[in-house]
Amino acid sequence: MTQSAIGIVGLGVMGANLALNLSHKGFRLSVYNRTAALTSAFMHAHGQGRAIAVADSLQDLVSQLGSPRVILLMVTAGPAVEAIIEQLLPWLDAGDILIDGGNSYYQDTDRRWRELAAKGIHFVGMGVSGGEDGARFGPSLMPGGAAAAWPTIRDMFQTIAAQVDGLPCCQWLGDGGAGHYVKMIHNGIEYGDMQLIAEVCHLMQHALGLSHDAMADCFAAWNGGRLESYLVQITALILRQRDRDGRPLVDSILDQAGQKGTGVWTAQDALDEAVPLTLITEAVHARMLSARKSERLAAAALLGSVPTRVPVAQRAMYLDALHDALYAAKLVSYTQGFMLMQSAATKHGWALPFGDIALLWRAGCIIRSRFLGDIKNSFARDPVPPSLLQDPFFAAEVKNAEAGWRKAVMLAVGHGIAAPALSSALAFYDGYRCAYGSSNIIQAQRDCFGAHTYQRLDRDAASHFHTRWLGDGGEEKLP
Amino acid sequence: MTQSAIGIVGLGVMGANLALNLSHKGFRLSVYNRTAALTSAFMHAHGQGRAIAVADSLQDLVSQLGSPRVILLMVTAGPAVEAIIEQLLPWLDAGDILIDGGNSYYQDTDRRWRELAAKGIHFVGMGVSGGEDGARFGPSLMPGGAAAAWPTIRDMFQTIAAQVDGLPCCQWLGDGGAGHYVKMIHNGIEYGDMQLIAEVCHLMQHALGLSHDAMADCFAAWNGGRLESYLVQITALILRQRDRDGRPLVDSILDQAGQKGTGVWTAQDALDEAVPLTLITEAVHARMLSARKSERLAAAALLGSVPTRVPVAQRAMYLDALHDALYAAKLVSYTQGFMLMQSAATKHGWALPFGDIALLWRAGCIIRSRFLGDIKNSFARDPVPPSLLQDPFFAAEVKNAEAGWRKAVMLAVGHGIAAPALSSALAFYDGYRCAYGSSNIIQAQRDCFGAHTYQRLDRDAASHFHTRWLGDGGEEKLP
Repeated sequence: MTQSAIGIVGLGVMGANLALNLSHKGFRLSVYNRTAALTSAFMHAHGQGRAIAVADSLQDLVSQLGSPRVILLMVTAGPAVEAIIEQLLPWLDAGDILIDGGNSYYQDTDRRWRELAAKGIHFVGMGVSGGEDGARFGPSLMPGGAAAAWPTIRDMFQTIAAQVDGLPCCQWLGDGGAGHYVKMIHNGIEYGDMQLIAEVCHLMQHALGLSHDAMADCFAAWNGGRLESYLVQITALILRQRDRDGRPLVDSILDQAGQKGTGVWTAQDALDEAVPLTLITEAVHARMLSARKSERLAAAALLGSVPTRVPVAQRAMYLDALHDALYAAKLVSYTQGFMLMQSAATKHGWALPFGDIALLWRAGCIIRSRFLGDIKNSFARDPVPPSLLQDPFFAAEVKNAEAGWRKAVMLAVGHGIAAPALSSALAFYDGYRCAYGSSNIIQAQRDCFGAHTYQRLDRDAASHFHTRWLGDGGEEKLP
Repeated sequence: MTQSAIGIVGLGVMGANLALNLSHKGFRLSVYNRTAALTSAFMHAHGQGRAIAVADSLQDLVSQLGSPRVILLMVTAGPAVEAIIEQLLPWLDAGDILIDGGNSYYQDTDRRWRELAAKGIHFVGMGVSGGEDGARFGPSLMPGGAAAAWPTIRDMFQTIAAQVDGLPCCQWLGDGGAGHYVKMIHNGIEYGDMQLIAEVCHLMQHALGLSHDAMADCFAAWNGGRLESYLVQITALILRQRDRDGRPLVDSILDQAGQKGTGVWTAQDALDEAVPLTLITEAVHARMLSARKSERLAAAALLGSVPTRVPVAQRAMYLDALHDALYAAKLVSYTQGFMLMQSAATKHGWALPFGDIALLWRAGCIIRSRFLGDIKNSFARDPVPPSLLQDPFFAAEVKNAEAGWRKAVMLAVGHGIAAPALSSALAFYDGYRCAYGSSNIIQAQRDCFGAHTYQRLDRDAASHFHTRWLGDGGEEKLP
């Protein structure tokens, strides 16, 4: 009997499409799904003429695989992953490779990697992005975990991944939970990108008074330049979509954004790492605020007002400003995201390949963009830059965009339209480029009410001082 | 032998001052400190003529107490609390009361409360605020945990607490970790208040070009009105403080703010609760950004510029705007903080008394202010309001302040000065009072790339729809 190169557990949308992608690229595979009906439907629709074997149990699946066995789990993150691993373990041998392709929390992956390593099993946590189409025709893949597995699985996954300039959007990211960590950051950045676009749409519609077609034209035009990206591209399509009555469909969609947790994880991890990930965090909060719809309706009745619109003659100027604001704020968001990855890499002992990460997000995934090519170039110039904002190319870009960015934020502030991500990004930028910020006041307050001490600009960092602010005003140096 | 009403473990700054406060109010007490030298020094300085007994071991301390025993732990949160509890347990009887007055994480308190309840011990987690002076002369106390303990300890702690209009700043908050939870929120709000003041100082100095004395005059004047509060008051003092060379001391203080964790806890808890706690979170992030001093210095050299200043003739107008901005943003911060407490109360099954919480923060603690009296009045009108921003009094106040607030944020944006908390608060306000926000775009994007579905404004909330955005544009209703 011919043995399969890989076994896939779980034939949901992502599992099924990865299976078809693998099969299409010539890899013989075995598939198993807990609900047999799903397997039958899959085989009925796609099985004909393909080297896909059906397994009717996990044991059967394992028996169909060559050595070392390669098994890809495409099941819902959480207890399901735990359960399948438990059920598979009795049939596996040392050296076998288990890959979790779901959206697992990186700390779970880290734990599983350790536990399975003790049993001789090579566990890989692999982030998969690109949605249904990506999985089928070329996803962005973010593998990490047991490095010993990489030589065995590399060819298979680099072959089915998206390609850009001849390079696959699939690179090894490091030990333990590194792959799922990078996928988490990807999702966080996706939250930020989406929020920025939503804010720009809202300003176009309500402060500039643009029609949906004019907005769509704008995004389509932007997609030909610096902002070229999948999300900008689909936003143009979305804005053109008509409802049954001919009105723009988006205006009938409830303004309550859902979320599945990776944005919250990213924001919480940044707080753990002491990294000021302001933009993504504001994006997550904006979704939470959106969910309070009935509360917002009541508040609008009490506090709301209809925004005024800028004169038609100023539209073009403000559209340029919105373009620059979107670009600059996005740069801040990616700066913060890479800042967080740098901090996490140090903490977890991962040698995260930042240039490769930019490359594997360059295509195949939701945040794919021309911009990520520029980021890749930045890391090629300096593999560990102080931050993207300090890269010579991006520093020049942001200086160029700065005036328009300020105009766009003032447009929002002046017209009473919420733009938390655009404005938070600007506040970060102004704080970041400030040699002497406002935290001296905070340190003075802390020393005043709690004797927390402060350091002085004119003394070394090891010296701490306390002033008797409420007493005689004397300063003492602490031992 | 006369028995003590309470035993105190730990004679650090807070423990010693609470001991003196209790003794001064006529409660006989026993004290114990692991390092005997600290106990001796305390007794030498304060013991004469006071009914304070020294215990030389935990067993000795327990033996000096009446029944039920009341023991207050004033040791560093974390393992030390755990260790002392373990060491005390063998000497305690069912019905004894153990109080943790440190800054413990509320989930630890919740766990200890459960574990000790199983042993018949009444465990109380009590937040203590007010610093050294508060502890000595009247702190704000936030007790929660074993309700059975409250009748026994109520008189003692309400007597030593700060008093406002004849009412003590010490009220029972609820089961388990409720007391430490409320203290955590207090600390988070403190982060927000301090950040707002720091931003206003920075704008006064760098955008308006005010001298430190003029800034101090301004805060002193504000302290006579709506903004009357401890933090505004000490900011005036801080700004007047001179260094040895006669220059303002604050300008010599390193602009790197420290933090001890409660701000991060608050921000992370808000993310868990799906409450958009944007202002406190920005304040926490601002401290994190401030810590990256050397990175900021390099960024300033590359991207920085000296802010221009507004004409002298406009100073008065902008100072009014800054006053209104500080007031309105503070209102947003407290709105978000109480929103988070409401959510936590539901989750943990606490009947948090919001009016009492406002009362017990009204005096004795770092965030004490006239404003908290207004909040108390708001909860007296409506014990469970949709939010503080929807209280009639505060709605009128914020409408009054709105124009100045926008001017202040535009001042920051236009002059390139970071004001993340002021501007984030405004973005929240504009999002909160928006009946139809920008999240329809986000839902359309999610449905487009991931078939996450959306709801429609013209259909019930239970109906979900998917559009084939990239296909024929058809819409399907999901079963």
